[in-house]
Amino acid sequence: MNWKNLDSISTYKKLGELKGHVNLQEVMSGENGAERVKKYNVPMAAGLTYYYAAKQVDDEVLDALQTLADETELTQKYEELYNGAVINTGEKRLVLHQLTRGQLGKAVIADGVDKRAFYVGEQKKAAEFANKVHNGEITNEKGEKFTTAVQIGIGGSDLGPRAMYLALENWAKATGNFKMEARFISNVDPDDAASVLKSIDVSRSLFVLVSKSGTTLETLTNESFVKDALRNAGLDPSKHMVAVTSETSPLASSSEYLAAFFMDDYIGGRYSSTSCVGGAILSLAFGPEVFERFLEGAAAEDELAKNPDVRQNPAMLDALIGVYERNVQGYPATAVLPYSQALSRFPAHLQQLDMESNGKSVNRFGEPVNYVTGPVIFGEPGTNGQHSFYQLLHQGTDIVPLQFVGFKKNQTGMDVQIQGTSSQQKLCANVAAQIMAFACGKNDENPNKSFAGGRPSSIVIGDQLTPEALGALLAHFENKVMFQGFVWNLNSFDQEGVQLGKVLAKRVLAHDTDGALRAFSDLLEI
Amino acid sequence: MNWKNLDSISTYKKLGELKGHVNLQEVMSGENGAERVKKYNVPMAAGLTYYYAAKQVDDEVLDALQTLADETELTQKYEELYNGAVINTGEKRLVLHQLTRGQLGKAVIADGVDKRAFYVGEQKKAAEFANKVHNGEITNEKGEKFTTAVQIGIGGSDLGPRAMYLALENWAKATGNFKMEARFISNVDPDDAASVLKSIDVSRSLFVLVSKSGTTLETLTNESFVKDALRNAGLDPSKHMVAVTSETSPLASSSEYLAAFFMDDYIGGRYSSTSCVGGAILSLAFGPEVFERFLEGAAAEDELAKNPDVRQNPAMLDALIGVYERNVQGYPATAVLPYSQALSRFPAHLQQLDMESNGKSVNRFGEPVNYVTGPVIFGEPGTNGQHSFYQLLHQGTDIVPLQFVGFKKNQTGMDVQIQGTSSQQKLCANVAAQIMAFACGKNDENPNKSFAGGRPSSIVIGDQLTPEALGALLAHFENKVMFQGFVWNLNSFDQEGVQLGKVLAKRVLAHDTDGALRAFSDLLEI
Repeated sequence: MNWKNLDSISTYKKLGELKGHVNLQEVMSGENGAERVKKYNVPMAAGLTYYYAAKQVDDEVLDALQTLADETELTQKYEELYNGAVINTGEKRLVLHQLTRGQLGKAVIADGVDKRAFYVGEQKKAAEFANKVHNGEITNEKGEKFTTAVQIGIGGSDLGPRAMYLALENWAKATGNFKMEARFISNVDPDDAASVLKSIDVSRSLFVLVSKSGTTLETLTNESFVKDALRNAGLDPSKHMVAVTSETSPLASSSEYLAAFFMDDYIGGRYSSTSCVGGAILSLAFGPEVFERFLEGAAAEDELAKNPDVRQNPAMLDALIGVYERNVQGYPATAVLPYSQALSRFPAHLQQLDMESNGKSVNRFGEPVNYVTGPVIFGEPGTNGQHSFYQLLHQGTDIVPLQFVGFKKNQTGMDVQIQGTSSQQKLCANVAAQIMAFACGKNDENPNKSFAGGRPSSIVIGDQLTPEALGALLAHFENKVMFQGFVWNLNSFDQEGVQLGKVLAKRVLAHDTDGALRAFSDLLEI
Repeated sequence: MNWKNLDSISTYKKLGELKGHVNLQEVMSGENGAERVKKYNVPMAAGLTYYYAAKQVDDEVLDALQTLADETELTQKYEELYNGAVINTGEKRLVLHQLTRGQLGKAVIADGVDKRAFYVGEQKKAAEFANKVHNGEITNEKGEKFTTAVQIGIGGSDLGPRAMYLALENWAKATGNFKMEARFISNVDPDDAASVLKSIDVSRSLFVLVSKSGTTLETLTNESFVKDALRNAGLDPSKHMVAVTSETSPLASSSEYLAAFFMDDYIGGRYSSTSCVGGAILSLAFGPEVFERFLEGAAAEDELAKNPDVRQNPAMLDALIGVYERNVQGYPATAVLPYSQALSRFPAHLQQLDMESNGKSVNRFGEPVNYVTGPVIFGEPGTNGQHSFYQLLHQGTDIVPLQFVGFKKNQTGMDVQIQGTSSQQKLCANVAAQIMAFACGKNDENPNKSFAGGRPSSIVIGDQLTPEALGALLAHFENKVMFQGFVWNLNSFDQEGVQLGKVLAKRVLAHDTDGALRAFSDLLEI
């Protein structure tokens, strides 16, 4: 592969000349706008479609992005990745999260085993365990069924699985797929665990301890907190806990757990929702069949990412438009705005996925880069965001590109008609209206009521947020981030930026500090 | 008052010459850093302190900021505001949220009444109502006590009150101040209301409908949704609902509510947590005495904001440092990072407060400004964020200023010792470590493991997150945003940027559309 910095790619200069090339206000007005909506979209998996008519692109920009994709060998690099190359060069690791949901290329043999078979085998173990919990073969010591599953994990062991659980909770309840309540403990703040424990019946709860290394301090601390609570309730912790970890971790063979399900170093935390990190808790909550459907949606989306034609590859297209917005147009942030309350924590997951993957200043060879990389990512569900930070998005001094998501149907099937329309119709009307308000704006003789427009957005539209659609959505963004990392020539799969804080925190706890660190530690009475 | 654009203020040019003036890595290293921590802090109310040693300031920058404060007449403008001037010029309204918690200056007479007396009177009504609910004088039709209070509101009627409730829930449970569970329905997505209703016993629930105008479409839609659910359960909705609204709203005198508590047009939604918008739900949840303590903390903080000395006025100082970072240093975003799980939704509240107030491109006279205004605001609680987006904060290509919050003690009093330290100590050690990692960074022979440092942060440190501390924290940020609006010469109290989307959404629902708006509406099957 030809790993090169973006500013050494010849198309990059050409792309720079296309700064401000498309006037959104103009092209999105009138029937021309309707033509763009028809033309500028690409099917995703699970019935989703990515619409980019309201992005600042036209055929000339798209052709330049195609040349950039070709020159940076994006799909070839993806192929290398899923065929088992050492893409995470810093940590000398393969990058195999796509393999947890499908076989995209050759068999990947590592550590002497077929990795696809390994991931499928672990998922099967988790599925069988979940089935036994559901049918009462595995119970608490009194023989009562477990009613609640509590994930203990932080970062990738928390944000993704939590967002996925919330995304499907109402759907599962409405479709008869709901098996167990799930809860999550993540923060080392003891009030997090204390408050979750107070809200559940620990005697009927199963705890899923998730740490790849088995050494994550927050997670081990919360494990102890939970074990104390179980013991105080006269319960045997080992009858209430399972571990999700790597085979080489201290947790792997411990007798302190009912079972252990494995992932490995080739699955980054933020990419682990489709491994047992998401699989154990989601299978417990909704049953293994639902988790399987989620994986199928992700696998189908991964297949689409193979297409070298940017107009036919939604993740690659989304990635390249993002690069154009970041490096050519100069926009510093991106907002993720799902019009679906079920996706309330999806932006927080994408925030980790994107910012932890591509928030870097050195290329994959450790050399500084001379261009901006990953943007700040934030978001809240619409319509809530409309009554909050949208003011800045519409009339602020910086332009923030927007990523909308919308579904035709809601999940619960419950709705109410007011003023002749349903809530779901109002929700959808709002997202359609916002796209146009951001794109075209509106002149008013009162400048305070004027909208400049020219604020680009895309929208993923689906029929309903089902497990398949969620899987496709998740994989879309994972692959988008991967392609952007390739364009920026980054290693998107390590996170050395989190290390220094850990080292210094240990020094504080060991009272091995001086200067300002000592001063702050004293103020906090550590 | 002398309302002038920032770029016409003479100090602004001088400030521009101070770009990059302080090398954080240098000044925060060694014993000099410890000296800075001792020197660069200012007391807030309720035992909180604002520490800004790790900001890119020194005496020269602070002197320039003092001159800027003087020249822009910040405390005089604040005085105008609390004495009842029409500061919200666009809507021709007074700005009186500080008056909900204290009398800062002269009596403010408007609409023929003393406004302080009006707000206190409404709070008293809400307090008496809450007491009657708690002591069983007001019950459901079967004479059973209400156990749950559900707020129906969106934007400012949701984010602030919800964040405040979550901030005090564990504290209240630990201190015997917990009266009723609170829940929140906000999104027009019908799954939001459906899922909250499924999780509660509606027959024992009291709904607090919050809409200043009484015409917020999302809120009225959710009201209907809830009324249907009550009727379907054989209950009389009018026995389960109270309204928080303005006296002139259609809800004010309706027989469909058990009671109505009033605010008015002088309290912006995002500034309404200390009015009955927050007061009704918080008094129901924790009792009126706790709400009173929350107001006292806010009132004390408001008093501190009168001080014309920037080094003695935490909100004004925070505001001015923010202006320096935004307009001189050129940083596009700010992260809010509370090391307290109880503050999990506080960043979402500040996101609205800040971005809706100062995300504007025209000055208070409707003229375009030639400088950047409000930044993007985002955040999650630490330590969770450390395992997520901190990678970009440490090693990304953009610098993002940080606002930390930390407390010496946790709220529940529950904790666990692991490896010789408590969870609370680990939490505090992490925030201290992060400040220093961001400020000083670390060189490593492997550039991928190097940290450039020079990333500025401040921290508010308190003893514990109590009602008083929360009130002080809330008022601090409200006043910070107010002062920044003054510096940027904005009207921070309107939000015309949210109007266009509303208008277009109505057109979609009326099928009065063409072009791309019609195309998107068709795709979403509205």
